[in-house]
Amino acid sequence: MDAAEFRKRGKEMVDYVADYLEKIEKRQVFPDVEPGYLRPLIADSAPQDPESFEDVFKDIEKIIMPGVTHWHSPYFFAYFPAASSFPALLADMLCGGIGCVGFSWAASPACTELETVMLDWLGKMVNLPEEFLAGKHGQGGGVIQGSASEATLIALLAARTKTIRWVQSENPELTEAEIMGRLVAYASDQAHSSVERAALIGAVKIKSVPSDDTFSVCGSALKKVLDEDKAAGLIPFFFCATLGTTPCCSFDKLLELGNIWMHIDAAYAGSAFICPEFRHLLNGVEFADSFNFNPHKWLLVNFDCSAMWVKKRSDLIGAFKLEPLYLQHHHQESGLVTDYRHWQIPLGRRFRSLKLWFVLRLYGVRGLQEHIRKHVRLSHQFEHLVLQDERFEVCAEVVLGLVCFRLKGSNELNEALLKSINDAKKIHLVPCHLREKFVLRFAICSRTVESTHIKFAWQHISQLATDLLKTWEQNHHQQ
Amino acid sequence: MDAAEFRKRGKEMVDYVADYLEKIEKRQVFPDVEPGYLRPLIADSAPQDPESFEDVFKDIEKIIMPGVTHWHSPYFFAYFPAASSFPALLADMLCGGIGCVGFSWAASPACTELETVMLDWLGKMVNLPEEFLAGKHGQGGGVIQGSASEATLIALLAARTKTIRWVQSENPELTEAEIMGRLVAYASDQAHSSVERAALIGAVKIKSVPSDDTFSVCGSALKKVLDEDKAAGLIPFFFCATLGTTPCCSFDKLLELGNIWMHIDAAYAGSAFICPEFRHLLNGVEFADSFNFNPHKWLLVNFDCSAMWVKKRSDLIGAFKLEPLYLQHHHQESGLVTDYRHWQIPLGRRFRSLKLWFVLRLYGVRGLQEHIRKHVRLSHQFEHLVLQDERFEVCAEVVLGLVCFRLKGSNELNEALLKSINDAKKIHLVPCHLREKFVLRFAICSRTVESTHIKFAWQHISQLATDLLKTWEQNHHQQ
Ligand SMILES: Cc1ncc(COP(=O)(O)O)c(C=O)c1O
Ligand SMILES: Cc1ncc(COP(=O)(O)O)c(C=O)c1O
Repeated sequence: MDAAEFRKRGKEMVDYVADYLEKIEKRQVFPDVEPGYLRPLIADSAPQDPESFEDVFKDIEKIIMPGVTHWHSPYFFAYFPAASSFPALLADMLCGGIGCVGFSWAASPACTELETVMLDWLGKMVNLPEEFLAGKHGQGGGVIQGSASEATLIALLAARTKTIRWVQSENPELTEAEIMGRLVAYASDQAHSSVERAALIGAVKIKSVPSDDTFSVCGSALKKVLDEDKAAGLIPFFFCATLGTTPCCSFDKLLELGNIWMHIDAAYAGSAFICPEFRHLLNGVEFADSFNFNPHKWLLVNFDCSAMWVKKRSDLIGAFKLEPLYLQHHHQESGLVTDYRHWQIPLGRRFRSLKLWFVLRLYGVRGLQEHIRKHVRLSHQFEHLVLQDERFEVCAEVVLGLVCFRLKGSNELNEALLKSINDAKKIHLVPCHLREKFVLRFAICSRTVESTHIKFAWQHISQLATDLLKTWEQNHHQQ
Repeated sequence: MDAAEFRKRGKEMVDYVADYLEKIEKRQVFPDVEPGYLRPLIADSAPQDPESFEDVFKDIEKIIMPGVTHWHSPYFFAYFPAASSFPALLADMLCGGIGCVGFSWAASPACTELETVMLDWLGKMVNLPEEFLAGKHGQGGGVIQGSASEATLIALLAARTKTIRWVQSENPELTEAEIMGRLVAYASDQAHSSVERAALIGAVKIKSVPSDDTFSVCGSALKKVLDEDKAAGLIPFFFCATLGTTPCCSFDKLLELGNIWMHIDAAYAGSAFICPEFRHLLNGVEFADSFNFNPHKWLLVNFDCSAMWVKKRSDLIGAFKLEPLYLQHHHQESGLVTDYRHWQIPLGRRFRSLKLWFVLRLYGVRGLQEHIRKHVRLSHQFEHLVLQDERFEVCAEVVLGLVCFRLKGSNELNEALLKSINDAKKIHLVPCHLREKFVLRFAICSRTVESTHIKFAWQHISQLATDLLKTWEQNHHQQ
């Protein structure tokens, strides 16, 4: 395929994507396919000779679409949102076209420098303390990670290295393995599974801190665990606070922890802090060493774009700096440049800051605030609908765009309700556990979801509940 | 921006990308900017109100392009190639448009299933043993990682878990920390820095195995180190063999290691194995536990797409499986589905297999073989030009698309030559060390590079060498 054909096919693809997103509402949000559906539809091996673009293009609707879960359908209320917007799609086209690999400043200066400045823009938008910004001469700064999981892992690893060095300088007789064996990381019992995974990867112990009635870790609960562990000779070194937990969007209390690295995982909720009315939820961020949220969740920047800031970039860089000659360049010792490969797990990196640049400029802060506020408004709309129905309860405070709810009744009943909702495939939800309770999560996801979709969703759920309760009671009576 | 405007702007962007790639030759391959160039060109913070697309679009040439290193210029001979092709760009547009997040089968069945089948296609193309393929009922299978660094890390972590479990089952008295303290990973002294980094992250010792005169690790050198370490009570658990080392594209010997996990990092060279004439370099792959190469380097699939296979997928999955309710789904216990989140560091993942599907079908195996063969031909052309000039030497066997060469003379002289090449900015190269020698690496990179570019590059280098040697000798005489 040459440039001329790309011009033609590229424009067809633009129209296909525009059509897909414009009419996504008409597609069934969750696919009908069974595991293994795709293999029989496809050749056993790659063709020897080129196929035509027409043939490949036709197969999108024939082979791919029947197996797609439509994350951008206004009937999708599962997980958390995956961001999508036209400006981000345009920027990603440009990113692909330039196709540079930005592991060091020299590998593409624009790729590195735009990222640093965009993370300053974004940091200011959520009102992060100055120390997290790169500014002209700051010690902090931001980086785009591929995912919140990676941000948590990088923070934990940097904290591990820093603590080992510090403990060893105080106790030269201890080996690294001995220190490692005593390190403990902490996170709420509501924290995302990626935090436990980071500890597994980093080969350190991790302990759950019990959350309170509002599913938040409060200072006293954390201090209690820390004090006990210190008394037992362990070395607490890392606390991952969650702002906006995955099950129910609760908020841990942030507090000063002294020698313990505090990382804030605000993967979902962080985007809301661009609205002043939600910023109180970020109180205490000044005590954190690192902070992360996902514009690829809720800030209209397509996956992947996870924004992370540290107060001291030397903590990240110092943890894993390796400098083979083929990656060195002329400017790196000047102290002026950032080589982002030291800030992340992979070596290579795409020009992802273009997406931020396009989205921030083409929406403006105001446009993005409107997006957040609309979602929060819609979640309260759903909350009110639930609260008006006596059969249901809301299971956690609705702060942002997530409503946790259930039928008053057994877990089995709620499992059956969720099954009937997801089997009907008119909308899509996922559940969670809050303590022992099986709970349905209703997350406002799509950029284009409106009040009418919320009403439809609620009427549909309510009707399914009515149907279910009828048979449920009959079965119950029969038994 | 609505769908109608996206149609318009998207088509403009397609043309911009086509123009950029068609005329890339006219751009200076390496930028003139100094560190910090970008910040003064850009506002201090994000705009409150939306800007126009025209304004953003204009800034691409004004702000971004002056700072871009043009990886796809036919005058770019640095690092290793970064793949780029029109079919991959089209697929990435589709990937962005669908915008699904494929962490589990249910999160988008097509995203998971196409990946499994594409990795089977690709595995067959490079003639991997059947055991690495998922097939219909296999125990193995492939996954797309973001980078070779992540593939190495994941393999090392899986090996670590497997070894700890196995040692503990034989020696229940040993703690995990004690076992960890005795684990050792190995790689060639020519291995990529990502291998050492993986060991740092995984908190295990790593040792360099000395490579031989051809910069390859041979079986006897490896066995010697392993035997010594075993005798000293250490537990060798992981060997990362490199096929196509970064400095000079040398090939380690693959051999059966018993209880030690062998991972093969063929990040660059792996793509060449689609050509039967290079497949002997893969002899011994049957002894490996995991194998990885980067279609995003040399197989015309835009970054990121790093293909990894394991013989036993349970080894990967078993290492870090965590199952919160909000990520569970109905089919997962059926044994029929793959949840790729267990195979990788991040949770979220894009629909990257679309790029493979488009590229493999629109080029066909033959088209891709032509691409590889052209690059290898061009590197031999360059090698011959170097060999005809008595002032120069070729420093390692030219097997694929990389030529390591230098002026016969001191390291300082060669550093000066490289500096004059890169300062002239007509072509771009990076150096490496081979033993104590400072060496220039000439890597065939661009999809569109032709014989004329090679001739030009050589004449240019040769002229700069002449100029340099003149002043160098004068300075030398004066001293
Ligand atoms: C609180 C929280 N942390 C981390 C993650 C993981 O995000 P990622 O997919 O970017 O790793 C999620 C995903 O939903 C989350 O809700
Ligand atoms: C042999 C080898 N391994 C690993 C890598 C790292 O690749 P990635 O950027 O995909 O992590 C490279 C990069 O050049 C390489 O040459």
